[in-house]
Amino acid sequence: MNMEEKNLAITSRETDYSQWYLDIIQTAGLAEYSLVKGCMVIMPNGYALWERVQNVLDSEFKKLGVSNAYFPMLIPERLLKKEASHVEGFAPEVAVVTHAGGEQLEEPLVLRPTSETIIYETYKDWVHSYRDLPLLINQWANVIRWEKKTKPFLRTTEFLWQEGHTVHVSMNDADLFARKMLNVYKDFAENYMAIPVIAGQKSESEKFAGALHTYTCETLMQDGKALQYATSHNLGDNFAKAFDIKFLDEANEYQYAWQTSWGLSTRSIGALIMSHSDDKGLVLPPKMAQTKVVILPIVKAENREFVVEACTKIRDSLIENENFGGFKNVLVDETDKRLGEKHYHWERLGTPIRIEVGERDIAEGIVVAVRRDTGEKIKIENVNLASSLVDLLNKIQNDLFNTAKNRTDENIVNADNWDDFIKAIDEGKAVLAHYDATAQTEKLIKDETGATVRCIPFDTEQVDGVCIKTGRPSNQKVLFAKAY
Amino acid sequence: MNMEEKNLAITSRETDYSQWYLDIIQTAGLAEYSLVKGCMVIMPNGYALWERVQNVLDSEFKKLGVSNAYFPMLIPERLLKKEASHVEGFAPEVAVVTHAGGEQLEEPLVLRPTSETIIYETYKDWVHSYRDLPLLINQWANVIRWEKKTKPFLRTTEFLWQEGHTVHVSMNDADLFARKMLNVYKDFAENYMAIPVIAGQKSESEKFAGALHTYTCETLMQDGKALQYATSHNLGDNFAKAFDIKFLDEANEYQYAWQTSWGLSTRSIGALIMSHSDDKGLVLPPKMAQTKVVILPIVKAENREFVVEACTKIRDSLIENENFGGFKNVLVDETDKRLGEKHYHWERLGTPIRIEVGERDIAEGIVVAVRRDTGEKIKIENVNLASSLVDLLNKIQNDLFNTAKNRTDENIVNADNWDDFIKAIDEGKAVLAHYDATAQTEKLIKDETGATVRCIPFDTEQVDGVCIKTGRPSNQKVLFAKAY
Repeated sequence: MNMEEKNLAITSRETDYSQWYLDIIQTAGLAEYSLVKGCMVIMPNGYALWERVQNVLDSEFKKLGVSNAYFPMLIPERLLKKEASHVEGFAPEVAVVTHAGGEQLEEPLVLRPTSETIIYETYKDWVHSYRDLPLLINQWANVIRWEKKTKPFLRTTEFLWQEGHTVHVSMNDADLFARKMLNVYKDFAENYMAIPVIAGQKSESEKFAGALHTYTCETLMQDGKALQYATSHNLGDNFAKAFDIKFLDEANEYQYAWQTSWGLSTRSIGALIMSHSDDKGLVLPPKMAQTKVVILPIVKAENREFVVEACTKIRDSLIENENFGGFKNVLVDETDKRLGEKHYHWERLGTPIRIEVGERDIAEGIVVAVRRDTGEKIKIENVNLASSLVDLLNKIQNDLFNTAKNRTDENIVNADNWDDFIKAIDEGKAVLAHYDATAQTEKLIKDETGATVRCIPFDTEQVDGVCIKTGRPSNQKVLFAKAY
Repeated sequence: MNMEEKNLAITSRETDYSQWYLDIIQTAGLAEYSLVKGCMVIMPNGYALWERVQNVLDSEFKKLGVSNAYFPMLIPERLLKKEASHVEGFAPEVAVVTHAGGEQLEEPLVLRPTSETIIYETYKDWVHSYRDLPLLINQWANVIRWEKKTKPFLRTTEFLWQEGHTVHVSMNDADLFARKMLNVYKDFAENYMAIPVIAGQKSESEKFAGALHTYTCETLMQDGKALQYATSHNLGDNFAKAFDIKFLDEANEYQYAWQTSWGLSTRSIGALIMSHSDDKGLVLPPKMAQTKVVILPIVKAENREFVVEACTKIRDSLIENENFGGFKNVLVDETDKRLGEKHYHWERLGTPIRIEVGERDIAEGIVVAVRRDTGEKIKIENVNLASSLVDLLNKIQNDLFNTAKNRTDENIVNADNWDDFIKAIDEGKAVLAHYDATAQTEKLIKDETGATVRCIPFDTEQVDGVCIKTGRPSNQKVLFAKAY
């Protein structure tokens, strides 16, 4: 397949960070725009990353007792209107089906921008008694939000996601579950994608339309801008009241139910791309890479067959080696390309380790492993190859996380007055600062600096202070940043 | 969860086959209608079956070198019109988005009824040289076809499916690949769903809109009606010409490419339900069942704890037993229900084996296993439990296939004249008969009897004869039946 643009130069991050991101996506063959405005084609290399997300998260959800189901993507317009703040949040960006089967529809149908309404209309018939609860359901689906400005993965008109929707007997149960799911997202981001997360609560202005509380995983990209990685909402009984979801409690009294919803989308792939990649191309953490190791035969015309055969044997011995564990996907690049072209190719795809094997290496019983992230070359003896590669893959995984963690920590600064705040935001930092927790002040700050409240971090010690903008009292520092 | 209607009586097949089908779906908690006309909610028990389909097929596709990708669900109307017979086939059933983001769209967008057009518009930029081929891509997606009459799983306005789209250098390569995929579907139907398949080619009238040849897996349900289980199309160069998909061949000349597309949908779940279930509820082949074995403790007030603990030990020993192989999913039903209610519950869910364990059984070191398909009770000694259950599950799997195979064989008859043909169709049989291979004759036969050409079976010996309707010469017997 010829889906990577092999000859395209990658713009450096320093020259144009935004173009660099687009170049990485193109040169790694991850996605491209389609002729439908704002909709992208997720190409095989990009979709493989999404499949990895699906496999890991789906298994984590199931461990928590969550089942998958599927609900219609078409939602009658009147349903969307049942919860007042929900419709206010989503009505401006819906796409509407007005005609079907050659006729005008009696009632327009919107393409789901999210599925609270259609799902909860169903739940009201599934929930009768406390014995039916908790109801723990997830769906993997496409959603449509009509966006004015789009960017592959980060913001597209159609995107793929999972959305979980649960029902509980109490506010406390719902809140605990919403927080538990946030932790699933945080663990996945940190342990698989190697992306450090600032977990916290959204401000009133930034919370999900219809939620009581929104919990969020915020991440910082290499340019210092924040990216909302995944969110989990405690919906309170807002939707239960709008959709009449009630249950008989143990005392045989009707109660409104308590709900959560939580989602992670293909946007997370955008975060993955931006977190680790460099000016040479995509960099993937080993746990996310489809191909963990690629073997490049160093051949001359006269020894090609011999060297390729030796490489194939190395691949087979790795795949069959029990100690090589989950790292099954090893390829030999047998194409006719020159060695330099092969470097270039696998570098751009982000493959964590490439192994080079020439005739002399075979004679000496060694290989040369090259790390994609650092470029470091390491001689490894064939006898220890499997375990050495596993160690190296784990080391790369950890190093990528630590590098991102150090960068994130360095990019978060404290500001105690307005001048410091402006200066830090201008320098592309995220800022911990006191503010008076009003929507008006948030808007003032946003209008003046472009920064928004990303979250009230869970792990920041909260002490009293004064708002950096208004001087009014504040009991919490929150994280401000410009955001994707 | 209270998603199965426990007190609903199941209509017998003899009384009303169609209502029986709906009752099975409701009592097993597989799906329900939503408030969007023709769209269903796939409930957790139903979606688990679709996940099983996805897991097995996805792995088979990957073995053949197919990668997954994702293309937009919105298709500009003009694209759909590029291939003449394709638009004729699909235009009447599309749903159209005319408004989005609060504005009328300049060009209406149709919701994909199938994705040939949007995918091939992309492929034309991916295919340049014979080196790029074959291009083997699949997507898992939802599609919308505005249907007048709907039935859960079998025909719904929105459904889930996979659609594969490949590009090849030659007509022959494309044809071989289309046939290979048909075999993947046939193997899955027969070896996992235990549904016997009649593989063959569609007539010109019944082939896919835009295809050169359509290959099909036809299955016969318990009422003798045929159900198209999956299809695979050799598209020839029809779409390549419409979408300008060309490649430079080895002689450096431009050639139009050759293509296939192939799909299997949630309709296959309908076939699964109808193939094996009985008047007591759903019957699942072990390879499709999420829960393979359920253990029911037979308890009295005074020994409840003791018996449940023994059951849990049996479950754990099974799950940990290597010889129990892939059959990991064993449950203990610890609910407060009476034993009779538990029978009823698991019978309706189609769980292949239930095991009953009482105090005396524990003392004797045996369990009683009950087959869902036959009701047969089998005493098994605990020491051999894992291997005995594996054998029994395999036997159930084979027996279900053989029962369906015998029924299918009995329901296919030969007819050499019009009277015999009508009589057989009226009796609910599928009929092998000569016809003159014209669309007019097909229409005559359909109008008079309701039967259509299901396929020209691959494995029917083709000898010359005369058309049962017109008396004109015919060189092939084809399979006629009423169909879902």
